[in-house]
Amino acid sequence: MEKQITIKLSEIAAIISGELVGSDTNVSGLCVPEAQKAGSLCFISSKHYLGYMNGVAGAYVLPRGLEVNLAYPIIYVDDTRPALVKILKTMFPEKPVTHNISKTASIAPSAEIGEPVDIGHNVCLDSFCRIGNHTKIGNGTSIGENVRIGNNCLIYPNVTIYDNVTIGDNVIIHAGAVIGADGFGFIPAANPIKIPQKGTVIIEDFVEIGANTCIDRATIGATVIGYGTKIDNLVMVGHNTRIGKSCLIASQVGFSGSIEAGDGIIAAGQVGFADHIKIASGAIFGGQAGVPNDIKEKGTYLGAPCIDMMKYAKAYAVFQELPELRRRVKNLENKSNSN
Amino acid sequence: MEKQITIKLSEIAAIISGELVGSDTNVSGLCVPEAQKAGSLCFISSKHYLGYMNGVAGAYVLPRGLEVNLAYPIIYVDDTRPALVKILKTMFPEKPVTHNISKTASIAPSAEIGEPVDIGHNVCLDSFCRIGNHTKIGNGTSIGENVRIGNNCLIYPNVTIYDNVTIGDNVIIHAGAVIGADGFGFIPAANPIKIPQKGTVIIEDFVEIGANTCIDRATIGATVIGYGTKIDNLVMVGHNTRIGKSCLIASQVGFSGSIEAGDGIIAAGQVGFADHIKIASGAIFGGQAGVPNDIKEKGTYLGAPCIDMMKYAKAYAVFQELPELRRRVKNLENKSNSN
Amino acid sequence: MEKQITIKLSEIAAIISGELVGSDTNVSGLCVPEAQKAGSLCFISSKHYLGYMNGVAGAYVLPRGLEVNLAYPIIYVDDTRPALVKILKTMFPEKPVTHNISKTASIAPSAEIGEPVDIGHNVCLDSFCRIGNHTKIGNGTSIGENVRIGNNCLIYPNVTIYDNVTIGDNVIIHAGAVIGADGFGFIPAANPIKIPQKGTVIIEDFVEIGANTCIDRATIGATVIGYGTKIDNLVMVGHNTRIGKSCLIASQVGFSGSIEAGDGIIAAGQVGFADHIKIASGAIFGGQAGVPNDIKEKGTYLGAPCIDMMKYAKAYAVFQELPELRRRVKNLENKSNSN
Repeated sequence: MEKQITIKLSEIAAIISGELVGSDTNVSGLCVPEAQKAGSLCFISSKHYLGYMNGVAGAYVLPRGLEVNLAYPIIYVDDTRPALVKILKTMFPEKPVTHNISKTASIAPSAEIGEPVDIGHNVCLDSFCRIGNHTKIGNGTSIGENVRIGNNCLIYPNVTIYDNVTIGDNVIIHAGAVIGADGFGFIPAANPIKIPQKGTVIIEDFVEIGANTCIDRATIGATVIGYGTKIDNLVMVGHNTRIGKSCLIASQVGFSGSIEAGDGIIAAGQVGFADHIKIASGAIFGGQAGVPNDIKEKGTYLGAPCIDMMKYAKAYAVFQELPELRRRVKNLENKSNSN
Repeated sequence: MEKQITIKLSEIAAIISGELVGSDTNVSGLCVPEAQKAGSLCFISSKHYLGYMNGVAGAYVLPRGLEVNLAYPIIYVDDTRPALVKILKTMFPEKPVTHNISKTASIAPSAEIGEPVDIGHNVCLDSFCRIGNHTKIGNGTSIGENVRIGNNCLIYPNVTIYDNVTIGDNVIIHAGAVIGADGFGFIPAANPIKIPQKGTVIIEDFVEIGANTCIDRATIGATVIGYGTKIDNLVMVGHNTRIGKSCLIASQVGFSGSIEAGDGIIAAGQVGFADHIKIASGAIFGGQAGVPNDIKEKGTYLGAPCIDMMKYAKAYAVFQELPELRRRVKNLENKSNSN
Repeated sequence: MEKQITIKLSEIAAIISGELVGSDTNVSGLCVPEAQKAGSLCFISSKHYLGYMNGVAGAYVLPRGLEVNLAYPIIYVDDTRPALVKILKTMFPEKPVTHNISKTASIAPSAEIGEPVDIGHNVCLDSFCRIGNHTKIGNGTSIGENVRIGNNCLIYPNVTIYDNVTIGDNVIIHAGAVIGADGFGFIPAANPIKIPQKGTVIIEDFVEIGANTCIDRATIGATVIGYGTKIDNLVMVGHNTRIGKSCLIASQVGFSGSIEAGDGIIAAGQVGFADHIKIASGAIFGGQAGVPNDIKEKGTYLGAPCIDMMKYAKAYAVFQELPELRRRVKNLENKSNSN
């Protein structure tokens, strides 16, 4: 855990619009129900965790509706999740950007950098790239020619951004991500012929990209990640694919090339999308779903090829008893033949 | 998009052996049908895109057989794909290798480097490694002892190549790839016993390896990627696996260890191959196929465990109506019992 | 292959408690049965490889029970695998840690480093981090504030370790791995609200983590990888997940968040575990298994959602003949209706 500040429960209650019941002690740091720490504040997000309330933590936060009759200090809130966000931001304030530029960074003379920016050790900024204000770039990150990165971005260490990529404001890119590598385009042959990939990648505002995720550049035009979309670790986004706004894409999901994905799509881990398909806004995909064709309607999909989740679940229930079903058919045939 | 050169349509027509119909204007850059740009050349690769021809782009390239009666300048070609390759190479010429060696690179005295080579910032070349002529190594890439890299290679930033790996000529390795990490070999135990991995990796000529892809070193001997094989991002190749020539391996595919894969294999995204199997040359695997056993014949495979794709599709069609099929069997049983 | 030492067969026999039959020649290096080298020692691990014994290699190691009547020098051992480990360690001794600290490393004044340690080029050690004795850190690796790394660890190049992570003794982390990136936690909204991730990651002793694998930090508390667990390349471990001791996790496996995984679990490649589930110690998962719910008992599981492997295999056998089964039901219905 990070170093944490000490704060009175009444102050926390004010920050999260909660109601304090019990003594107004100090707390320092947060803990989980399964591993409580003395003097720490513990979140009880649901009934499931009520049994963990043993007084080891210094105080608890509970949702209204789960009132308990215990002697420990408790703050009741309408919704624990936004309360958690506020408390985490209060207890672990972000380090300010201080215009700290490492002497080991290699910054091309033609690069334009805002102020303040933090540039880590061994960062490489190539010709004509532009970095906005209040942006922070981690150690060892390599940024190519003509790349544009907006304001208030947080780029972690060892990221690689290829030439000519455009990144908006308030974007977070985690360590090891690769933005703008060549799309996978070849003409089959004994030595397959590479189709040069000369398009770009556009990452819109408020996007978050996970560690070691890869977003390939377009052949011509742009691969686009829409406003507010959040992408987890080890995700693949192929060339010329366009992902809409406010999507939540879990780890190890794969988007092939030239996909048109709408807004608000949710994909659980390891989902795979085939190339050249359209995906309706609001569609939800269960883990490992395989999506070979257009998804024309909102819905929740599972299986490979994916179908409506409930339909999949019912079919899979029968799948498990297929040997028995075959025996039953055999019995009927035997009876039928003996008639 | 990268900076682009301006060129006359008649020159382009000559380069791609095409026929120009309409005025011989200048174009600059390429655009996609969905997002045309004035003064740009737009590729119409199939009938599907004909409806996008609206004259916004400066000119169009169409395959013969799709002739249209429109006033815009059009170049007709026999096949748009090789034409696209030629135009991309013409409009976006590769930067020449200029023997630009960053002062921040750490180059062991015993390393041998060709001429010209471009060595980026913070590149590490360890003892006795050899880099061929016209090879370019990106920022932050780390190359171990005794590594041999051939001529005309392009190694992007933040790649890691472990000791003793051999890489041929004309190889492209994208950012974040890891070549030669230890194979996953353990003897099960309370603390599983590591089997030292002391073999190597051999990457033959004209191979391309995607971003954040991992090719593990052999326990003894070599993991081999054959001539002309192209591997996409986030792919895993396990120790002692040998992949043949001219294969196309899409992103997130996983090869376990000790696989013997033939030539010309095509694997779509997220396919998984079990260890110690043989895969026939020319076999094709649909997305997410699982391959637990030898594939003895060419064919197109789908499902997990994978079977012939058409067979899978037909079985999966019935799978979706299994609850109904079970009801029909139940009806027959009821009828049969009431007789 | 690495440079190798030359050694007499009788010395090897002594090291691996084997019995030498034939002349006591020198060997140098190891080779595989399929690609034997003169003067090299070749392991024949099973009957399957007996046919490869052609005398090209300088000598062979065979398990007792596979005695052959051949003129080549042979060492017989009870178990070839531990013998292989011993010979690999003898022939390819680890390079000692020599307290070689690159001048290009950026080491914060408050960082504490043991002795001896090897610190590669461009390594970044941030404030208050502590590195144990006999630990080696590869080129370009970035280690955040307050990180603690134990003794005898081996961290390969271009690894990123975020702030406040704790790593035990004898841990190996391969190139490109990312330890401690933010967990994927958002409150859905038009611009999904990020839940700050302020917990940590704890890697216990004797863990090995593969190339480009990602272990996310907890929201509160810790993501934990237990003692002796070995994780392959490109694996995802989500926030607040706790993996037990001595597990073997193959490449491209995905653990979502808040999983409680027991000890001795084995997961083959590309397995996916849903969030907030418990997995019994000793459970084994076949390749690409999907695990949506608690696994309460040891067993071997396959399919998505996963079920007992034998049950899956039997059901899948019938799945393949579903079109035929449906025809048989149709026939029965026709007969039944015509009665």
